[in-house]
Amino acid sequence: MANTDLTAPRLKSRIEYSRITIEHVYPQLDAGRYPIKRIVGDSCRVGADIYMDGHDLIAARARFRGPNDRVWRSVEMSYDYDTDRWNAEFPLDVIGLWRFTVEAWPDSFGTWLAELRKKVAAGHDVAVELLEGAQVITNTLPNSDPCAHRELQTAAKQLCDPKLKLEDRLKVAFAPELATNMAGLVNESHITRHRREYHLMVDRPEARFAAWYEMFPRSQGTEPGKHGKFRDAEKRLRRLAELGFDVVYLPPIHPIGITHRKGPNNSLTAQPADPGSPWAIGNSDGGHLAIAPELGTVEDFEQFVKHAADLGMEIALDYALQCSPDHPWIHEHPDWFVIRPDGSIKHAENPPKKYEDIVPFNLWCEDRDNLWNACKEILDYWIERGVKTFRVDNPHTKPFVFWEWLIASIKEEHPEVIFLSEAFTRPKKMQGLAKLGFTQSYTYFTWKNTAAELRELFTELHSTELVQYFRGNLFTNTPDILHAYLQKGGRPAFRVRLLLAATLSPLYGIYSGFELCENVAIREGSEEYLDSEKYQIRVRDWEAPGNINDDIQALNRIRRENPALQTQGNLAFHPTDNEQLIFYSRTMWRNDLLILVNLDPNNRQAGMADVPVGVLGLAPDSSYEVEDLLTGRRYEWRGVRNYVDLDPAVRAGHVLRVVR
Amino acid sequence: MANTDLTAPRLKSRIEYSRITIEHVYPQLDAGRYPIKRIVGDSCRVGADIYMDGHDLIAARARFRGPNDRVWRSVEMSYDYDTDRWNAEFPLDVIGLWRFTVEAWPDSFGTWLAELRKKVAAGHDVAVELLEGAQVITNTLPNSDPCAHRELQTAAKQLCDPKLKLEDRLKVAFAPELATNMAGLVNESHITRHRREYHLMVDRPEARFAAWYEMFPRSQGTEPGKHGKFRDAEKRLRRLAELGFDVVYLPPIHPIGITHRKGPNNSLTAQPADPGSPWAIGNSDGGHLAIAPELGTVEDFEQFVKHAADLGMEIALDYALQCSPDHPWIHEHPDWFVIRPDGSIKHAENPPKKYEDIVPFNLWCEDRDNLWNACKEILDYWIERGVKTFRVDNPHTKPFVFWEWLIASIKEEHPEVIFLSEAFTRPKKMQGLAKLGFTQSYTYFTWKNTAAELRELFTELHSTELVQYFRGNLFTNTPDILHAYLQKGGRPAFRVRLLLAATLSPLYGIYSGFELCENVAIREGSEEYLDSEKYQIRVRDWEAPGNINDDIQALNRIRRENPALQTQGNLAFHPTDNEQLIFYSRTMWRNDLLILVNLDPNNRQAGMADVPVGVLGLAPDSSYEVEDLLTGRRYEWRGVRNYVDLDPAVRAGHVLRVVR
Repeated sequence: MANTDLTAPRLKSRIEYSRITIEHVYPQLDAGRYPIKRIVGDSCRVGADIYMDGHDLIAARARFRGPNDRVWRSVEMSYDYDTDRWNAEFPLDVIGLWRFTVEAWPDSFGTWLAELRKKVAAGHDVAVELLEGAQVITNTLPNSDPCAHRELQTAAKQLCDPKLKLEDRLKVAFAPELATNMAGLVNESHITRHRREYHLMVDRPEARFAAWYEMFPRSQGTEPGKHGKFRDAEKRLRRLAELGFDVVYLPPIHPIGITHRKGPNNSLTAQPADPGSPWAIGNSDGGHLAIAPELGTVEDFEQFVKHAADLGMEIALDYALQCSPDHPWIHEHPDWFVIRPDGSIKHAENPPKKYEDIVPFNLWCEDRDNLWNACKEILDYWIERGVKTFRVDNPHTKPFVFWEWLIASIKEEHPEVIFLSEAFTRPKKMQGLAKLGFTQSYTYFTWKNTAAELRELFTELHSTELVQYFRGNLFTNTPDILHAYLQKGGRPAFRVRLLLAATLSPLYGIYSGFELCENVAIREGSEEYLDSEKYQIRVRDWEAPGNINDDIQALNRIRRENPALQTQGNLAFHPTDNEQLIFYSRTMWRNDLLILVNLDPNNRQAGMADVPVGVLGLAPDSSYEVEDLLTGRRYEWRGVRNYVDLDPAVRAGHVLRVVR
Repeated sequence: MANTDLTAPRLKSRIEYSRITIEHVYPQLDAGRYPIKRIVGDSCRVGADIYMDGHDLIAARARFRGPNDRVWRSVEMSYDYDTDRWNAEFPLDVIGLWRFTVEAWPDSFGTWLAELRKKVAAGHDVAVELLEGAQVITNTLPNSDPCAHRELQTAAKQLCDPKLKLEDRLKVAFAPELATNMAGLVNESHITRHRREYHLMVDRPEARFAAWYEMFPRSQGTEPGKHGKFRDAEKRLRRLAELGFDVVYLPPIHPIGITHRKGPNNSLTAQPADPGSPWAIGNSDGGHLAIAPELGTVEDFEQFVKHAADLGMEIALDYALQCSPDHPWIHEHPDWFVIRPDGSIKHAENPPKKYEDIVPFNLWCEDRDNLWNACKEILDYWIERGVKTFRVDNPHTKPFVFWEWLIASIKEEHPEVIFLSEAFTRPKKMQGLAKLGFTQSYTYFTWKNTAAELRELFTELHSTELVQYFRGNLFTNTPDILHAYLQKGGRPAFRVRLLLAATLSPLYGIYSGFELCENVAIREGSEEYLDSEKYQIRVRDWEAPGNINDDIQALNRIRRENPALQTQGNLAFHPTDNEQLIFYSRTMWRNDLLILVNLDPNNRQAGMADVPVGVLGLAPDSSYEVEDLLTGRRYEWRGVRNYVDLDPAVRAGHVLRVVR
């Protein structure tokens, strides 16, 4: 393990290629251990500290290589005196894994030219300097193209020619063509290359910007209690597209275990008609590669996916690496599970809790090579059937190196695939999963309801290193989480949480029932739904009175029309004098939004909000117009402090665009 | 160059040894590219983020290896829930280059025991769990020592024994001896080792804490204008030791060039009696390995070094890698210099300025291997003659990789050697030299005279990453720098700058003449001394009236008596209501100093200073005693705001110790 880089002999061996120091190369994550994330169409701005002994000038370039490039490309870096940094930028025009690094070399020609200018101005004799210039040019000749080669040769000869007048030789030296011909010419052996490459994972735009809708296809039938099929679910797609959703996410669609099947409200015994939890995957009809017959056939599923695509949406599947005791692999590959000393297979547990309907894989087993490949084949199978997005169940309970390998393997062949990490665990683990490759991540948004909590979470997501790799997908609710704020705040609370989710992050989602303001918990103090869809079929009228579909449709439209809502890293919070009124801006070139939300679902709240006029380029006392994108109404605002009055019975907040 | 770590096949090859994520290992500098710095007697506190999938417990240790260790040692890491970090500490008891890294493994036994406890408490049947425990124990048997081996074997047997009562088997499981025997036992193949080693350069204490005195030995004679010798200089050593200095630094002591020798006040022509600049190294008497005959012999020098050592001081030499045109190497190795197209050797220049008395090395020449070794031999030679500290002249004009190699090479054999970098250049280059190995560095202190400037510089030195590697040595003046503040502020200005230097940093120095408040510049607007010692011999009465030797002696005593003044990273600035009064604290366990300085050398200044009572552990309104270590006088202070009144005619400031 000895990387004795710093011993004298090792250092000596490095001399040849390290005249120049290149350090603090950005963007990078953990010194290049993990790729940072971008989407196609972004550009990569590379910066570096580059310095060398003495006063000679330096030239530098960023080298980069896209997933389809057979050779490295490069772009010149330029020096910024104020920051003492070198910078360059290149476009990320293809999805997949990109690499870049930085290299630099002493700019002999530039140095010579600059010094010559100073000496001539000071009236020095520069005869020898002209000979030196000829040397500099001659040294780079082997690297010049044939066309420049001849011109350079001529210039070098003229600089040395004692028959020419000094004046004419200086003209040759200072001729712009000479500088043009010399630009970028460098003897390969003079180049110092930064010791590392850095990686960027460039995703398709939906990786960063999308509205998700989670639904159980089995609840999409029309008759109460009757098991819905893909054909029923398909009928809902048009309305979901109308409402502006981009992704429809389905809990597992595979055959469901019988042994220890859970009944309604997570009861330990199920009646024969009870459908069971879809996360107990596998029975005699098949496992992760099968579809529960009660939902339809693979062809039905493919048709469902296609119909969604025709409507501009895509289907996300749940990827839950666990089995019911009836999964075919339990018998085919008992060694893929933990076998206890008594010969039994270990079910899931979190002592003293037992989960006897679920059997976890032993991803660290002897036969892990085959097991890991089998896990990958599940993804391959559904990708082949049109799925490009996977919501991954509890990834933090499987080896992290497994995920790093799996995601890299899939993305090498299918860089368009998106993985959403559902890990509710300590922040470093959540972030670790995002670093190793998950495209998006669940967050603690669901539990952040006060202004202080929201400020803390979203300052972290928008204003720290997380911007480089952690894309939070804000769910207002999930089949597991119905927060007390929703249980107690009624319809206004649902409108508030929707408004926050849709405007605090480019990625957000709701789980069906949210639009109907369903808010009954199984019991006081619990976040579990009463009669949860996890164990029952729940057929509803999706347009029932009191729904908030208008809000959803308006917000999804506003998100699509305003680029400021489509990115991460452009959010700032601003003061109000009422802690129930949260105020933030989403700013972007020509698209500045000011968002005010009344977090109190029960009471009208008013107060003064401090507009960041400086950031918006407004004079401190100027008046300006803002348009509420939710209502179309315009207001005349003035200077920093402006009055806001929000009644939850009428509206949850304002999404104000600064009119220019 | 492809480090395609992130491709799927590479990831797969890493699976075997990376179940656990170990990241953000500290302390480190630039991801381990450079060593951080410590002194012997410090301890190294290692911290890391360590996590793994699932709920199993983790065990971790820091591995480390001192310069004399033949094998790696290790120390257990412990987990801190609040920060979600793992920490360990080990003592740095030997000087030289240390290495450390971190490793971790799943704590199977700890996990099993904790879960068993919960299951027993919940009344579960744990028969199979006991068999599992026996398995865990048996798996680690090959790694146990023979003594524990038998006991573990017995325990495993008992856990499985159906003839024993459950109660007795549980007793075996929960017996403390079992846990003791299992502690630290791990199957090597389960260990994840962090991918990097980090380095620490551990120096002797003088690397961090010392008072320097710079003097020209040739000026230490007693007759005006007569060239002093080492024997004369030796007579001053006792007084310098009395004043509390640790290091006596001499400008180059080698034979001085004749060609283009500079006369008084940097004039272009020297008279035969003019001694020349010692930085124009080399003439027919020798080069960097010789001593100027007018100073004495090598034996005289060795005697001088020995005498200093007997007084508890050491001699620092100047290491200036440049030659006069008369240096022997110019003729012996013309290829070690830049040879121009007309066959001449290039002298130093910074166009349009020319330095014709100096010839720089071409450290990038073809024969660089021999040249670099020759440069190293200079150091070897003087180290052999008792020199352990070198002040390096203009290191930023020589290749950085040369210094990294040179310093590492010297320190491999002589880890006690200290290198002080004299680089006045852009901050990143200054810091780069410190990172690559220089023990100490000159700073911009000499030019920082206002409170705002001082706060900025010393916040950077004490409260940023620089603490890990950049040890600023504050010179109040140098032969090149007599700041306008000293020229104009008279004796009070000298006292202020001395007080600041001695209390803002554990390392500081003065250049001789400072104690006599010499402040005449060559001309208005220049920082050069009139009749500079660089070109003339200057014999003075070192106890002339108006000297500030008492201040020097007092401050050096206070520095030795107060550990808070001997380290870096423990300084904080505090508010005053008068910008001429700067107020800072140096705090340490049982040694808290409050330092107030009147920066105005011309006027009495008074105001309120805000004491950081919280940091000092004082109640906001309590009264406490402070003792001025400069005068011995005690004051009764109370709470935060206290009144200060400083008259520059009387004193420069207070060094107050909080009396406990």
